[in-house]
Amino acid sequence: MSGGIHGDSAVLDRIKRGRALFALVVSYTRTAEIPGITAAGADADSIKCTPPADAELIQHGLCRSIRGIPATPDGKPTPALITRAALQAASIPRVTVDAGSMIRPRLPHVYTGMVPGEDISRYPAMTKNRTRQAISYGKQTAGMLSGMCDCLIVGESIPGGTTTALALMRGLNLQAKVSSSMPQNPHTIKQEAVESALGRLHTDDPLDVAAQTADPMIPFVAGMLGGASVPVLLAGGTQMLAVLALADRLGPIPNNVAICTTSYVAEDDTIRFRDQADIISPDTQVVSTDLLLQESRHDGLRAYARGFAKEGAGAGGAVIASRTRAGLDQNQMLELVDKEYDRIITLR
Amino acid sequence: MSGGIHGDSAVLDRIKRGRALFALVVSYTRTAEIPGITAAGADADSIKCTPPADAELIQHGLCRSIRGIPATPDGKPTPALITRAALQAASIPRVTVDAGSMIRPRLPHVYTGMVPGEDISRYPAMTKNRTRQAISYGKQTAGMLSGMCDCLIVGESIPGGTTTALALMRGLNLQAKVSSSMPQNPHTIKQEAVESALGRLHTDDPLDVAAQTADPMIPFVAGMLGGASVPVLLAGGTQMLAVLALADRLGPIPNNVAICTTSYVAEDDTIRFRDQADIISPDTQVVSTDLLLQESRHDGLRAYARGFAKEGAGAGGAVIASRTRAGLDQNQMLELVDKEYDRIITLR
Repeated sequence: MSGGIHGDSAVLDRIKRGRALFALVVSYTRTAEIPGITAAGADADSIKCTPPADAELIQHGLCRSIRGIPATPDGKPTPALITRAALQAASIPRVTVDAGSMIRPRLPHVYTGMVPGEDISRYPAMTKNRTRQAISYGKQTAGMLSGMCDCLIVGESIPGGTTTALALMRGLNLQAKVSSSMPQNPHTIKQEAVESALGRLHTDDPLDVAAQTADPMIPFVAGMLGGASVPVLLAGGTQMLAVLALADRLGPIPNNVAICTTSYVAEDDTIRFRDQADIISPDTQVVSTDLLLQESRHDGLRAYARGFAKEGAGAGGAVIASRTRAGLDQNQMLELVDKEYDRIITLR
Repeated sequence: MSGGIHGDSAVLDRIKRGRALFALVVSYTRTAEIPGITAAGADADSIKCTPPADAELIQHGLCRSIRGIPATPDGKPTPALITRAALQAASIPRVTVDAGSMIRPRLPHVYTGMVPGEDISRYPAMTKNRTRQAISYGKQTAGMLSGMCDCLIVGESIPGGTTTALALMRGLNLQAKVSSSMPQNPHTIKQEAVESALGRLHTDDPLDVAAQTADPMIPFVAGMLGGASVPVLLAGGTQMLAVLALADRLGPIPNNVAICTTSYVAEDDTIRFRDQADIISPDTQVVSTDLLLQESRHDGLRAYARGFAKEGAGAGGAVIASRTRAGLDQNQMLELVDKEYDRIITLR
């Protein structure tokens, strides 16, 4: 069963035996509006709709905020379809949390009152007070959700989020490298945005750094780690590293946290994910899974194995949790993902 | 242990053994603005804040939307403090659902996009389309929450809600009688509002009747009954009868539903609660509990035994669920409620 899952974690034991809950945190940063910085969405308008559409796909199996499903400009599908297939397979319940999305998901969801973050290449991401509030709302939300499960799986959907993750980690003096939804990581564009944000820093206070450089998702999920009374599985790639980095500066990271992602992120030599995680939080277990997408029947999914999308909407963590709970092997999960793609194509 | 709990229910068995979740549905009807119709709130402005403040008290133990806690004009406290004491005693997790509140609760809560209902003495409560949406949102919300628990306890906080409950039941041709938060039930004021609403009816289609006469909470919670995949305990008095009445007209009521309230409602000879429930839904178990509030150390709580407030914010159902889970007798629960009152007084 564990074929293709690398790493071990006490959190996975909890997922096997207890009740799991998947929370998708949707958010927005106007940094995503910098031309060329993200592939999440076919055009500028649809970028705004990607987070709610991901949430709708994961919870209901179809999008309401857009026609079809979120995709790159050339039609590669959102990783949320992988998340959907995985969570369905193990009947893992799910909830959407709006932590500053530009567009509200069209389904009942957890409302926090948070607003989108600014473009960090031009302005502070948010005020220090809003940063503090985001942490507090994250704590409260995780406290509430902890009562309803034995293990909380947290994914995110925020276009442009790897740029803010990079800026935050650099602001915290980490030698960070981040992934991208494009194989030719748009380093120059990202780097310019990051440098602009870092140029505004005059302190290493973590709240000030987050206020200048982050997006609303990062302090919110960092706050969740402090508020959860059950183990937390951070489902995501380098953006969840940024969450860990901020959480570490705000106080000790609880020892019942794991970070789970796809092998496309974990085994990318250019980002050295495990090394980064080890520096940021040595006690946090890293687990990754090979989705075998190079063997998919669909070209849009095979592209993941060539470096497109790679991760997002908690896909890697959802697959790891689902395989752990339902006892599915790699090939069975791939077949479920392919079938979910078949089903979604008929909806278009 | 079962002293003072009247009635039996398979739903209570589920509460004893499984994971329970308490959902407070907050809503608003402008019918509450008719002078003299409700005692929920010391003045017109604070009536609007009662639902969010109840939610804040139940989840966090203090109110953020108002100073102190919701109270009648002469200082009798909200039943939400009973709900709070009960849920804390049995560590039952809780969530707030905004189904059309005028003021948003100041805590992370489930957002539906619903808006307040109109004053039924003057206008239709809502459009037929919004009524249909409310049912649909209720279904979706209950479907989501069902994944997180083995039994769902649903309370409500909506000032003026007994008037809309009465109007709806009359509109559905039931010989309804409803309770009130005042011992001298303001029959004339309520009756005038109800007659105005009924005067607009030209059909017995349940959606039309609800659109003319109800408040947003009623179709929302009726929808929840259709969407829940676990047993549901309706925690409330005559307003929950209205929910059952509408749910019955929309389709068969699932057999895993119980209605739980205080003895102050269940044993009020003027409303004959059990008889009404039996007519509306013979298969729905009725359970009530005597809170022994005549023996409280606090005059504000003793008033409940004299006919003030009586029920609300799911108090009766929360006490029944909590006593069932935690094995508490009547006196132990009374002591916890009194202590909660002591604690709240120090916050003022």
